[in-house]
Amino acid sequence: MAFQCNVCNNIYRFNDVIHGFRCSKCGSPLEVYEVERIWNPSGFGLYRYSSMIFLKPVKTLGEGFTPVVSIDLYGFRAYFKLEYFNPSGSFKDRGSSISLSHAYLINASCVVEDSSGNAGFSTALYSRALNMKSYIVVPSNVSYSKRLAIEVVGGEVIEASSREDASRLAQNISLDKKCYYVDHLSNPLYIEGYRTIAYEAFEQVGDIDAVIVPVGSGGLFIGIYRGFKDLYRTGLIKKMPRMIAVQGVDVAPIYEKLYSHKPPKGVALLADGIRIKSPPRIDEIVSIIVKSKGLASLVNDDEIVESVKELRDMGFIVEPTSATVYAALKKNIEWFRKMGIENILMPLTGTGIKMLQQLKQIIQ
Amino acid sequence: MAFQCNVCNNIYRFNDVIHGFRCSKCGSPLEVYEVERIWNPSGFGLYRYSSMIFLKPVKTLGEGFTPVVSIDLYGFRAYFKLEYFNPSGSFKDRGSSISLSHAYLINASCVVEDSSGNAGFSTALYSRALNMKSYIVVPSNVSYSKRLAIEVVGGEVIEASSREDASRLAQNISLDKKCYYVDHLSNPLYIEGYRTIAYEAFEQVGDIDAVIVPVGSGGLFIGIYRGFKDLYRTGLIKKMPRMIAVQGVDVAPIYEKLYSHKPPKGVALLADGIRIKSPPRIDEIVSIIVKSKGLASLVNDDEIVESVKELRDMGFIVEPTSATVYAALKKNIEWFRKMGIENILMPLTGTGIKMLQQLKQIIQ
Repeated sequence: MAFQCNVCNNIYRFNDVIHGFRCSKCGSPLEVYEVERIWNPSGFGLYRYSSMIFLKPVKTLGEGFTPVVSIDLYGFRAYFKLEYFNPSGSFKDRGSSISLSHAYLINASCVVEDSSGNAGFSTALYSRALNMKSYIVVPSNVSYSKRLAIEVVGGEVIEASSREDASRLAQNISLDKKCYYVDHLSNPLYIEGYRTIAYEAFEQVGDIDAVIVPVGSGGLFIGIYRGFKDLYRTGLIKKMPRMIAVQGVDVAPIYEKLYSHKPPKGVALLADGIRIKSPPRIDEIVSIIVKSKGLASLVNDDEIVESVKELRDMGFIVEPTSATVYAALKKNIEWFRKMGIENILMPLTGTGIKMLQQLKQIIQ
Repeated sequence: MAFQCNVCNNIYRFNDVIHGFRCSKCGSPLEVYEVERIWNPSGFGLYRYSSMIFLKPVKTLGEGFTPVVSIDLYGFRAYFKLEYFNPSGSFKDRGSSISLSHAYLINASCVVEDSSGNAGFSTALYSRALNMKSYIVVPSNVSYSKRLAIEVVGGEVIEASSREDASRLAQNISLDKKCYYVDHLSNPLYIEGYRTIAYEAFEQVGDIDAVIVPVGSGGLFIGIYRGFKDLYRTGLIKKMPRMIAVQGVDVAPIYEKLYSHKPPKGVALLADGIRIKSPPRIDEIVSIIVKSKGLASLVNDDEIVESVKELRDMGFIVEPTSATVYAALKKNIEWFRKMGIENILMPLTGTGIKMLQQLKQIIQ
């Protein structure tokens, strides 16, 4: 088991990757190297697909195998995949279970991550369960509730002056204290975990025409695509779904690169989980949209609020970033019809239960 | 489909039960009447066992089919069943999905429930998803976070001066406004939902020697027992598990009735989800413990705090009431060994994510 830079073709040994997942020569994000993938589902959770992914998690906290709820909406069959049914309440746990297992297996005694959101909470939870100290670097303006979640599961919160400073500080802590740097924006083990969403959806509902995914770093988007590609290669599905990337209207690097023009005016501050200006795998994301005949779609705060409310009325308590997929569905109804799409998979990525106060303000 | 009073043998028609689930003659809790149960699991969630339960829910929000995480502890195999992976974060959703479907099918336009905790939140969520107005009657000293959860999913919070007053008020609202009274403490449809925990556990891990359950009204305890009984009758399992009821040391009606003496001194205020002084099916609960050669076990606040911490360290973020099962395991290690018990099923009933602030105070 090893990692590779697809640009330099450099190979990095399993035990040597501890200070992050960027190639030391060219800075590209590393990928997993030569994984044999055999379709042999058995058991539950992520373990069900142990023969399809890079690494079987050392420990399970119950991640994966989330329900799909199917609802007829606007003439389509909507498949909502409830990723908030995960141990820390978000899809990130699928990646953390694998990456923190990697940290454990290479004998890391501590772990560091820069994220104030779901990745920080998830990292702290899995670190605790695997008996590793975790440092979570957050911007100093982080909300009280996000800090609280990290602290409850035993993470040590460290403040940085900005998002960029947080990243630098995390790398320094990794070097100084010899801590494993999770680096979830570049980390290919998170992408490994997200592949399983495609496997489960296939087993739960069969063929899927299109997938709508919120795109920040793009790990979830790429992971789901690669998962469907695995199923396609083994002959389990006959066609690939169209991939639709959703971003907030004011941080829209995928849209800009794909369509070569500036996004319309507007704000999408509520989509705080996907405000990533430079996704490390931007070229791959754009290429997936083109190859799969998909779309990049932009949503704003008003549309997000409306979608949070409507999802709540359907019985789904989600955080605003999660609601972007439903907003994107509503914006592109005509396009979906024209493309002959009948059913659409939408992961609902994170729970609203950890932020009821904020949700109440939004909903009123 | 109908309901019956097992004391008077009175039959109540499906459409006539709207103002609660007590016999109008003798006050005993009603039971479901003549349900044909055929073992034919297919699909996911509660729908998987549609042929085993009274009523297939009208709508699913993703309830049921929760993960089991297996850990070796004190020489036993502990099976933690993560009931906090449910739409509102607690096991109550298994019952609400059925009971609120009943309300919907008898054309109730509104619903009322007296509960400040998980049942109130769950009722409000399912009512909203089925387009029925909900009134949730709470004691006036209810915490801000509990009120918030109900309001976010569209429930109208009504204050009562005490727990007893809340019950009276709920019944009055039911009569005045012709609202369906969920009456979850007596409602046999919740028990129907909890049967599925036994079915799932059987499919997930096979034979089970003992089950530890937090007991308030006893619905969960009875439901799991009846579920195993169904499996036993159909020949799927060869022996019944021992049933262990856990209560807080200062509200311990099962313990008192079973052993005919007062509980030891102590407090268990943290077990607020199971502080029910008069469980409506107390005789059945006691009889199940006796028949299954089980136990009633009491825990106090110190033991609960310790268990919340240890469960957190294993990766489970649960509310204090949920942690009582683990506290009871630790208290009865010698007894479990003497009985030759090898594996133990423990439902973890409710998420801690909705109360991170309280959890942090407890854990420190």
